[in-house]
Amino acid sequence: MQVDVISSVNEARSDDFINKTVIVIDVLRATSVIVTALAHRCRGVVPAETVQQAKSLQQSDDLLGGERFCKKIAGFDFGNSPLEYMTLQIEGKKVILTTTNGTRAIQKTQKAANVLTGSLLNAMACANAARQLKRDVMIVCAGTQDQFSLEDGLCAGLILEEMKKEGEEVETNDLGTAMISVYRNLGENIEHALLNCSNGKKLSRLGFQEDVLYCSLVNRYDFVPVLKGEMLVLNPQKPFID
Amino acid sequence: MQVDVISSVNEARSDDFINKTVIVIDVLRATSVIVTALAHRCRGVVPAETVQQAKSLQQSDDLLGGERFCKKIAGFDFGNSPLEYMTLQIEGKKVILTTTNGTRAIQKTQKAANVLTGSLLNAMACANAARQLKRDVMIVCAGTQDQFSLEDGLCAGLILEEMKKEGEEVETNDLGTAMISVYRNLGENIEHALLNCSNGKKLSRLGFQEDVLYCSLVNRYDFVPVLKGEMLVLNPQKPFID
Repeated sequence: MQVDVISSVNEARSDDFINKTVIVIDVLRATSVIVTALAHRCRGVVPAETVQQAKSLQQSDDLLGGERFCKKIAGFDFGNSPLEYMTLQIEGKKVILTTTNGTRAIQKTQKAANVLTGSLLNAMACANAARQLKRDVMIVCAGTQDQFSLEDGLCAGLILEEMKKEGEEVETNDLGTAMISVYRNLGENIEHALLNCSNGKKLSRLGFQEDVLYCSLVNRYDFVPVLKGEMLVLNPQKPFID
Repeated sequence: MQVDVISSVNEARSDDFINKTVIVIDVLRATSVIVTALAHRCRGVVPAETVQQAKSLQQSDDLLGGERFCKKIAGFDFGNSPLEYMTLQIEGKKVILTTTNGTRAIQKTQKAANVLTGSLLNAMACANAARQLKRDVMIVCAGTQDQFSLEDGLCAGLILEEMKKEGEEVETNDLGTAMISVYRNLGENIEHALLNCSNGKKLSRLGFQEDVLYCSLVNRYDFVPVLKGEMLVLNPQKPFID
């Protein structure tokens, strides 16, 4: 099985995703938000590219979530902090989410056979799901404004390690090999790595250090958000709730 | 001192290089060729973007070197194998070099205050020179067709480690942090890493395994090629010859 890693969605053409399983990673914070919202019985998360698009997609009791410049968008129900989504308010509701990097990456990969979202919170489940789908995999690190983000690379390395654990023959590209090294070198103290990477420092400065600490928890959830049509839903359909 | 790493020259705008020291790395094989040619008393290496440009720059007894698809260009004196440049034939001569990734990257960074070329062969000298220049540094991995190449990232990590050794306060971007991890994880067996990365395997298949082994030697030369005008020359002016 070939499992390639790219450091931003713009490194690939949308046709490169055809017939593949794509795993989109935006640890700080979009894909951590998505898995957390689904763990708290949200019906599904619809990624939107722009604020306007998010608003136009909203129907009846749908909720709006997302950020620009790391902060909640005016008039939205939620920001991009996963901790906000730990609420009964989202039970059974659809959340329309727009963020600067993560949701845009998900939208660009829609030609893939399967789109999963990965984070440290559900890395092992994500690796298992990708393995079971038996297709070549493209791990798309969302990054930040098309630049490499350490936390996404670290998570890609962890997912690769998890995929190899069950004896799967995993071939990877050079960036994948590098990310396995990053995980092996920094994986013993992920919390420290996340607090000291560029986005971790920025979020801490803006008052979101609790988010960074939460997003550094490994394998807290045993399921994977999967894109069905326009919406990310749970797979398998049995959420683990805190 | 801020030392950022980028995985391909196209990740930066040419204005991003202004006032900085830029280190261009193309371990397999352009920057290994350049340092080897200068070690063997070549007068200087002029990077050219195209075959046509290389030919038009040639005067009197200048030599032409370079590759397309890893192979020597028809009518050229040398290919892109560093071993070819270990010859008395180049003593005192100017070499005009055109390669797919490395020389193109050098040409794109010409707005920098200083342009150095780094490889495993001269990593420590490169780190020392950059430190002495006392400017912020951009390490440009040439990569392969704008994709990350492991051998360049490994070399960037080694240069960062060498820069930190003398107690220099080195701040780096996320990719720099990742490359330090890559070096710490793979640095104990660099030869193995180079033989097994994408370019190493391709070159071995094409009959250039000796090049890969040679390019994996660390700190064989104690000087740095520096761009003066259009030409890379030795710094300091005292080559170490085998």
